[in-house]
Amino acid sequence: MIKINHVAIVVSDLEEAIDFWVETLGLTLEKRERAEAEAVEIAFLPVGEGEIELLQPTGEESGVARYLENRGPGLHHLCLEVDDITGTMERLRERGVELINETPRVSDDGQRRYAFIHPKSAGGVLLELYEFARDGGGD
Amino acid sequence: MIKINHVAIVVSDLEEAIDFWVETLGLTLEKRERAEAEAVEIAFLPVGEGEIELLQPTGEESGVARYLENRGPGLHHLCLEVDDITGTMERLRERGVELINETPRVSDDGQRRYAFIHPKSAGGVLLELYEFARDGGGD
Repeated sequence: MIKINHVAIVVSDLEEAIDFWVETLGLTLEKRERAEAEAVEIAFLPVGEGEIELLQPTGEESGVARYLENRGPGLHHLCLEVDDITGTMERLRERGVELINETPRVSDDGQRRYAFIHPKSAGGVLLELYEFARDGGGD
Repeated sequence: MIKINHVAIVVSDLEEAIDFWVETLGLTLEKRERAEAEAVEIAFLPVGEGEIELLQPTGEESGVARYLENRGPGLHHLCLEVDDITGTMERLRERGVELINETPRVSDDGQRRYAFIHPKSAGGVLLELYEFARDGGGD
């Protein structure tokens, strides 16, 4: 089972973007968070079973800042949630897909593994994969 | 209630794109369809409650063809499903948002109303809105 976890949008002004997506369009602002490792401030807007994430660079050196500089604001990446990120990445590798992360990274809270696929292997799309930890239950 | 209906991706070669998204990543190809009005061939890949749509231009004159020419392949637009497209568009207009379609268009099967918001009013994102017709049931 694969689903869209989030669509990430690069913005130059987070306040202005929240004004559009939340105040004007009617989405809900769940939280704002600074991700120091990626040098972005993120606004999380849940929408159905997924989320829209608004990313504003907090410095000039990050990948997101360079993207904004080169391409302007707009759609940045798509994240798909998969059941088995290791198996998926193995299959991608076998088929010659270039991965940005060779092995999944683990989120700070330990609940999520994630990896990026290089846009040149995904038709120009920066594609992220998520796998959430399952609640116990198994044997 | 708002949800992500689809994420549309412009591709230069639909066969190659299907090979990546379906054969390699594991999504399902539901159908392929030519949309003559937009001069594109579309592959529909259901994913959770939404869909990924792969768009390949079938001519050189369409908006999608120009996008591919200018920006290269990649994420093209985001479509949100809303309950009340007329009310949403009214609110957008009151707030000075530029709409590509001033009134909703109706799909050929009559089941869906849709409109595009101009990227310059949506932080660089080409944003589409959908409203599906409700099944009878009312009074």
